[in-house]
Amino acid sequence: MNVKERVIEIRKAQWFSNLTTAIIVVYSSILGLKTLGEISSSYIVFFHLLDYIITLYFLIEIIIKMSAEENLRDFFKDGWNIFDFVIVAVTLVPLENSTMAAVARLFRIFRVLRLITSRPELKKIIDMLIGAIPSIIDIVILMFIIFYIYAILGNFLFESAPSGLWSDFLVAMLTLFRILTFEGWSEVMYEAMAIHPWAWVYFVTFIIVAAFVFFNLFIAVIIGEMEKLSHEGEHEEEIGKLDAILEEMRALREEVRELKDSSG
Amino acid sequence: MNVKERVIEIRKAQWFSNLTTAIIVVYSSILGLKTLGEISSSYIVFFHLLDYIITLYFLIEIIIKMSAEENLRDFFKDGWNIFDFVIVAVTLVPLENSTMAAVARLFRIFRVLRLITSRPELKKIIDMLIGAIPSIIDIVILMFIIFYIYAILGNFLFESAPSGLWSDFLVAMLTLFRILTFEGWSEVMYEAMAIHPWAWVYFVTFIIVAAFVFFNLFIAVIIGEMEKLSHEGEHEEEIGKLDAILEEMRALREEVRELKDSSG
Amino acid sequence: MNVKERVIEIRKAQWFSNLTTAIIVVYSSILGLKTLGEISSSYIVFFHLLDYIITLYFLIEIIIKMSAEENLRDFFKDGWNIFDFVIVAVTLVPLENSTMAAVARLFRIFRVLRLITSRPELKKIIDMLIGAIPSIIDIVILMFIIFYIYAILGNFLFESAPSGLWSDFLVAMLTLFRILTFEGWSEVMYEAMAIHPWAWVYFVTFIIVAAFVFFNLFIAVIIGEMEKLSHEGEHEEEIGKLDAILEEMRALREEVRELKDSSG
Amino acid sequence: MNVKERVIEIRKAQWFSNLTTAIIVVYSSILGLKTLGEISSSYIVFFHLLDYIITLYFLIEIIIKMSAEENLRDFFKDGWNIFDFVIVAVTLVPLENSTMAAVARLFRIFRVLRLITSRPELKKIIDMLIGAIPSIIDIVILMFIIFYIYAILGNFLFESAPSGLWSDFLVAMLTLFRILTFEGWSEVMYEAMAIHPWAWVYFVTFIIVAAFVFFNLFIAVIIGEMEKLSHEGEHEEEIGKLDAILEEMRALREEVRELKDSSG
Repeated sequence: MNVKERVIEIRKAQWFSNLTTAIIVVYSSILGLKTLGEISSSYIVFFHLLDYIITLYFLIEIIIKMSAEENLRDFFKDGWNIFDFVIVAVTLVPLENSTMAAVARLFRIFRVLRLITSRPELKKIIDMLIGAIPSIIDIVILMFIIFYIYAILGNFLFESAPSGLWSDFLVAMLTLFRILTFEGWSEVMYEAMAIHPWAWVYFVTFIIVAAFVFFNLFIAVIIGEMEKLSHEGEHEEEIGKLDAILEEMRALREEVRELKDSSG
Repeated sequence: MNVKERVIEIRKAQWFSNLTTAIIVVYSSILGLKTLGEISSSYIVFFHLLDYIITLYFLIEIIIKMSAEENLRDFFKDGWNIFDFVIVAVTLVPLENSTMAAVARLFRIFRVLRLITSRPELKKIIDMLIGAIPSIIDIVILMFIIFYIYAILGNFLFESAPSGLWSDFLVAMLTLFRILTFEGWSEVMYEAMAIHPWAWVYFVTFIIVAAFVFFNLFIAVIIGEMEKLSHEGEHEEEIGKLDAILEEMRALREEVRELKDSSG
Repeated sequence: MNVKERVIEIRKAQWFSNLTTAIIVVYSSILGLKTLGEISSSYIVFFHLLDYIITLYFLIEIIIKMSAEENLRDFFKDGWNIFDFVIVAVTLVPLENSTMAAVARLFRIFRVLRLITSRPELKKIIDMLIGAIPSIIDIVILMFIIFYIYAILGNFLFESAPSGLWSDFLVAMLTLFRILTFEGWSEVMYEAMAIHPWAWVYFVTFIIVAAFVFFNLFIAVIIGEMEKLSHEGEHEEEIGKLDAILEEMRALREEVRELKDSSG
Repeated sequence: MNVKERVIEIRKAQWFSNLTTAIIVVYSSILGLKTLGEISSSYIVFFHLLDYIITLYFLIEIIIKMSAEENLRDFFKDGWNIFDFVIVAVTLVPLENSTMAAVARLFRIFRVLRLITSRPELKKIIDMLIGAIPSIIDIVILMFIIFYIYAILGNFLFESAPSGLWSDFLVAMLTLFRILTFEGWSEVMYEAMAIHPWAWVYFVTFIIVAAFVFFNLFIAVIIGEMEKLSHEGEHEEEIGKLDAILEEMRALREEVRELKDSSG
């Protein structure tokens, strides 16, 4: 067995993928615990060492994955591999000047995203969500049109509100997003009704159109895609059986016709 | 190729519909940006010019659409054409006196609605929602009956509440709409319980009946219509195949009977 | 045509049911408008007259409905008729002493419920909801068990909270209902965490178990029943067709067997 | 009839299971009522007596259930029996010293959970929920990854917020859970925007990703499992019928072939 074969063997081994998962979980837990209290300087050394080891492990791991491919191009054909590569590459860049170092360290939390690549079921859900985008896009556009009209109108009508919730188009968009989640929308309405007494029409129609109708259409599409994932093939199975019956039927009829001809 | 044929060609061209979409998007973005800060007088001239050009473009566009039809009547048979026509016509009316001009300018935001007409998928969703009205209407009536009874009762029981949330029938309806979205309903309840200690019965039953049961029926109908849109024809496909099998079967039986007669 | 036949004719006429609907709508609107402002004494006379006329109309209407039946017993066999009868009967009772008169007048708002009886589609939805009770009852019991345990626990743990939200078992139940709707639950939690720092466990588990899981099961059952109402018979249609094919098949096989016997 | 047979008879009797249910309901109600006001010392004696009797009843009941089995091992094979056994055993332990006695008494509220064991429909729902865990686990992991990233980010960005809502990783997780339920999230956002003006991006993306998308996937899985419970077998029924038709078909074709051979 040459080196290449051994690399492929390691790459496919369950223990290799489990080890990666375990390392990510341990590393992420430590990153989280670090925020819980003051850390003495001796721990800081430990953290630096740990970080160094894990960066090295991820580097080795991705090199194994790349070497296991017939061709380096094949590696980059899978979107998930590119995803892994970017996360490893970004955290490799050494940034030692103080302002950028903090941000670079922060980027390490995205390593937890590599958990997704290590479990095929998680990849499946993410792939499904990406696949659902075309069916969601139209509802998102309609939602955006509704938000746009209400934001311009809100800015025009309630710009003088003392809370400043309608002071410009972008702020009004944020206020409408807040109303979409029903978060304290009645306060916003009562303030607006102090300016225009019939302002409740604006809020009630927005909630009915945006929150009751369009938001639920959006949810319906996501739930529909999820259901497809679990019921997939049921309809196809039935249609397949029906086609088999129909074919069997026609063959039989042919035989009966032959029989008639021979006895006729 | 005469003028009429050229007009029809332009009307059907993808670039023509894309150009309209692009112009609406650009125009709407500018309208939104305009609210973000103080605009110098030189910009105001630019905006007036832009507005003039876009109004002209929309006018030309609708004339092309109208000319492309065999008959002007056919143009007005499609509800979406009437919709486009009204939006173009309304923004054409010149209103130069100061009070109405602001409102007229505001009406221009509805031009963004023309995005819907330029994408068939969006038209399909709106058509579906309009088509769902008959199935929703009964639940809306039931919701209204529940709101009506609770509003009269609330006004009768809690009219003296210092917040004035139950001061008359219409205000009580608005308060109930707020409770339907769970927006600060416990404050409203605690205030009412200061008047009648058992007022929680009123609020808990309203939430269970209106928000838990009827509101979810309303959502169920909308989600159901959405699902119909994506699963449409599955059931029909199966029934169609079953009918084909049944017909094939009867033909076969006929042949067997003939065979029996001839050999009998 | 004798009197009985004429009565039956009126009872079945569309205009009769439409007239009842119209009268209920007009009457309910007036009842609602009455709360909007101070009413002069001349209007009060008008309202008394109106009330008298409508009470009379409802009395005549229910007598027509009762007379139209072959047998008075048949009238009371339908739950909806009993419902109508009770509403008419209750508002007939003359109550002239001041304290009870207000309550008696209030009871008149339930006349709006007669709208349900006048539209068969509304009756169908209500019947469906009543029919869904057996499938909901088990989830309601489970919800109640969860509420019970958390209410006792909450009363035991947080009884000393200054807001008095956990002062006894029933108050704790109401507080939990409020948390179920997410209404200001974080304030309740922060107060409880001042007593027991780990109180967040209590709130987070309650929200996950009661609001995320069981509440959605409850909604799922209601939505499921609604879907049954609109998809009803689809599955039955397919099974019916399949049974027809199977029967046809067996008959055919019988004939082939006979043919074989005769030619054998 | 020997003792064993009589025990089995009692164990299977409907009245025995109904009696247990009734005792649990009565006992739980009394436990709840006890919190409503001050209890005089004479009542305390009554409660102690009641508690003694019920503990005895539960002990006898579980002994009957254990004796009714062929083999004591069979009793412990059913998870629900173990569940009952633990509840009875825990409340048997005598704890008379003051600090632990309160906790021991509190544990008695879990006796209400035995209601689940006494109704097969409730057991079915719980079994379904346990069965749904494998399909939910992946979405829970994804949710956890999202929470993790946002908690670390939130702690890094908004640690200095005066409310202390982002002071460490665990507190940030709790704050995010609160935002997931939309509870006062706009206040949290406005506070954060005072530190970083673009903080709204953090909150809006979290709500869209965690609350709109992933939370609804979670709900979709639970609703899907619930629907499976009520629609179970519909698809299987159709497939079964289709298979029967196909088999019948092949048998028929065989017979026709034989006929052809004999007449050929």
